[in-house]
Amino acid sequence: MQPKFICSLRLQKAQAREIVTLIVINFKTYAESTGEKALRLAEICEDVSKEYSVQMIVVPQVADIHAVSEAVKIPIYAQHVDGVPQGGFTGSVTAASLKAAGASGSLINHSERRLELAKIDASISACRSLDLKTIVCTNNVATTRAAASLGPDFVAVEPPELIGSGIPVSKANPDIVSQSVKAVKNIDSSVGVLCGAGITRGEDLRAALELGSEGVLLASGIIKAKDQQRALEELVTGVKR
Amino acid sequence: MQPKFICSLRLQKAQAREIVTLIVINFKTYAESTGEKALRLAEICEDVSKEYSVQMIVVPQVADIHAVSEAVKIPIYAQHVDGVPQGGFTGSVTAASLKAAGASGSLINHSERRLELAKIDASISACRSLDLKTIVCTNNVATTRAAASLGPDFVAVEPPELIGSGIPVSKANPDIVSQSVKAVKNIDSSVGVLCGAGITRGEDLRAALELGSEGVLLASGIIKAKDQQRALEELVTGVKR
Amino acid sequence: MQPKFICSLRLQKAQAREIVTLIVINFKTYAESTGEKALRLAEICEDVSKEYSVQMIVVPQVADIHAVSEAVKIPIYAQHVDGVPQGGFTGSVTAASLKAAGASGSLINHSERRLELAKIDASISACRSLDLKTIVCTNNVATTRAAASLGPDFVAVEPPELIGSGIPVSKANPDIVSQSVKAVKNIDSSVGVLCGAGITRGEDLRAALELGSEGVLLASGIIKAKDQQRALEELVTGVKR
Amino acid sequence: MQPKFICSLRLQKAQAREIVTLIVINFKTYAESTGEKALRLAEICEDVSKEYSVQMIVVPQVADIHAVSEAVKIPIYAQHVDGVPQGGFTGSVTAASLKAAGASGSLINHSERRLELAKIDASISACRSLDLKTIVCTNNVATTRAAASLGPDFVAVEPPELIGSGIPVSKANPDIVSQSVKAVKNIDSSVGVLCGAGITRGEDLRAALELGSEGVLLASGIIKAKDQQRALEELVTGVKR
Repeated sequence: MQPKFICSLRLQKAQAREIVTLIVINFKTYAESTGEKALRLAEICEDVSKEYSVQMIVVPQVADIHAVSEAVKIPIYAQHVDGVPQGGFTGSVTAASLKAAGASGSLINHSERRLELAKIDASISACRSLDLKTIVCTNNVATTRAAASLGPDFVAVEPPELIGSGIPVSKANPDIVSQSVKAVKNIDSSVGVLCGAGITRGEDLRAALELGSEGVLLASGIIKAKDQQRALEELVTGVKR
Repeated sequence: MQPKFICSLRLQKAQAREIVTLIVINFKTYAESTGEKALRLAEICEDVSKEYSVQMIVVPQVADIHAVSEAVKIPIYAQHVDGVPQGGFTGSVTAASLKAAGASGSLINHSERRLELAKIDASISACRSLDLKTIVCTNNVATTRAAASLGPDFVAVEPPELIGSGIPVSKANPDIVSQSVKAVKNIDSSVGVLCGAGITRGEDLRAALELGSEGVLLASGIIKAKDQQRALEELVTGVKR
Repeated sequence: MQPKFICSLRLQKAQAREIVTLIVINFKTYAESTGEKALRLAEICEDVSKEYSVQMIVVPQVADIHAVSEAVKIPIYAQHVDGVPQGGFTGSVTAASLKAAGASGSLINHSERRLELAKIDASISACRSLDLKTIVCTNNVATTRAAASLGPDFVAVEPPELIGSGIPVSKANPDIVSQSVKAVKNIDSSVGVLCGAGITRGEDLRAALELGSEGVLLASGIIKAKDQQRALEELVTGVKR
Repeated sequence: MQPKFICSLRLQKAQAREIVTLIVINFKTYAESTGEKALRLAEICEDVSKEYSVQMIVVPQVADIHAVSEAVKIPIYAQHVDGVPQGGFTGSVTAASLKAAGASGSLINHSERRLELAKIDASISACRSLDLKTIVCTNNVATTRAAASLGPDFVAVEPPELIGSGIPVSKANPDIVSQSVKAVKNIDSSVGVLCGAGITRGEDLRAALELGSEGVLLASGIIKAKDQQRALEELVTGVKR
């Protein structure tokens, strides 16, 4: 099958390094994305990813990672990782266990799982030592700058008040996105910038890209949709006018 | 193969309900019990369990549960579970995801992953609603009594200062075990009592059983042993004089 | 001045020990109860306490305790105490510092400051060793039972969904109060039972006492009232038909 | 009394803004610096500060701040502050309550009281809005950079493994100090840099200043000294050869 053309907007801008639009689907702990349903949603994401040549990352619960990794080939990230060493850390989620289960990266410091500053740093280091990618979530421009200075692969700015609201950050608060991009690039131009919160439709994604972000974090807008596949297709096709 | 006789001590005492010695192996986050090595250790536990007719529970990291569940048939517990509902709880470990991955229970409130009182209650409720077993860890007689009053399947008392010490609780602090047993039975006789911390050898296990506990929590003594299988066999055979 | 008669209901019931209605005013972190305004509110509480012969406890922020203790003679409790020993625990609130500042007790595990089970136990022990009184807050009957088994002076059950709601627990959920009283008395009859959440008016207080509780926790209903003194007087006089 | 000459080293360097050596004494929760003993230690610090023309900040427990503020005129900082708004935040330490009690600043994110990244940002903002100074503690160069990017008045880098060790950071790990200074000045030259951990003697302080820091955080080395005044005098005089 011939992948349909998409995301020219970002691709044109990409110069110093190849930038593709990144769509990160955070499965959270919804019934519609747990266990068997995590597998099905991951497969939908993989299909859409191939069909529309967009880079997609699925972020299931930790317990679901191994089964999902047996079902799909697109990157799987964890929702959280602890930067603890091996040893007596019962209940922690280690980078080593994530990698063994098939993950290739992790969210860190999601607004629903905030971490202490020193632990964000430790989580990034733990991932880096095992070649796992990192996306550090932040809540405003100041914390975005702080997170970028720790050298993750990506920061993802998400105003907490918009998460799950259906009101897209790229429209409700475009400044937080553009200022985050500017702040990150001043600190370390190799750190990518994503944004999230309230994004559901293609035009929200398009707005996010136009503001300079390289992709988005999505959750309830897709997961809770009556037809997950259709919601995802509308998102990625809607980015084109 | 004819299972060898073991643990007559406890079995003789079992009257109101069938009590068998329970050996819970907490894999923690050791390199020797993560990923591929979690599978191998789980298989050793299963072999010893069959060979010696002792009930064994393995407690790998969450990310390892699914792969372990494909490899062995003995019960697999998680090291931690969050009593959160389905929805926006990124990074939480839900009972539903554990069950889907193949777990049949969970530790709760391990000394390396202490929980707020209300969250212990929520975790127990979440597990109960999905028929997952619960072992609530505690640090002294007072908290053992409190934990028992929440109605878990088991409490496991472990003096924090002895965890990983190699000094067995059943010898260093026998009173904490016998008093915990007494306290729990006063609160709710259907709650089982385990003990842990520093237990490595059969005589430690024997002492724990003689103090009235129904089993033990083990970790480093087995996991860090040069020969994990031999260490485990010595433990379960050593219980007999 | 002759104290007006009040609370005969509870006083008639008091037999094994002298029980008086306890009204605990949690100042939280409202502007209306911080700094200078904490002093003024404490003085109002003291006036009402004397005028109406009701036992009142004020619970200002930790930083306000010393100044409040210079202004009033009624008991002052802290909103939180850490059960840490002396030493390297920067930022903790020790029982010793509270006592030195003039407090005679502390809330523990308030719904806005939940603690790990082992820390609740440690906080109670730390207070007990310095003759500070303890009120452990809980969210349902199960955790009330657990808290009572740790032997505090009081437990205070407060359904989180009613806190600050204006809907009084004693009307919205009378069963949680009466069952908490029963559960606590089964565990340890020397532990007092308070209730809270949504209580503002005298009839709510009366209902709480009729359900077997020995007093109430109050906050926003008094603190945010246009006229704090009048709100408090209406509360304590309204308890009589 | 004529203040004795001190700290010419730093004073010579000060150009863009007046820099004086800052000595911050963290009282932690030691018996030797709680309650009455907090007052006495604060008075010693004030005496030494005047006598030797060195800027000294005392950091008692929150409950001790008000009494200390009645006893001395040197700046008093809190050990921790929560960036919560006014309202229902029982047990939190608000900037408003600290200011009312007499504090003029606060430590934030001390290694014994680590905070989530977003909360560090909120604490700084809460202090700034009330003209309270902020010192954000960090554990390595990466987190120092992150903390500086949030715009506090000072960052204080303290390798956790050296805290309370008696081994001075300025000798054991001089690079962490000089690199922190460099990193901070690259991010925001208006942010001051302190260092801490293991510093007791004048030569440690001198080394810290020579590495570019503007002052130090001290605790056990002074607090646990048999003669606190003498220990403090030796520190500030020892900075001169």
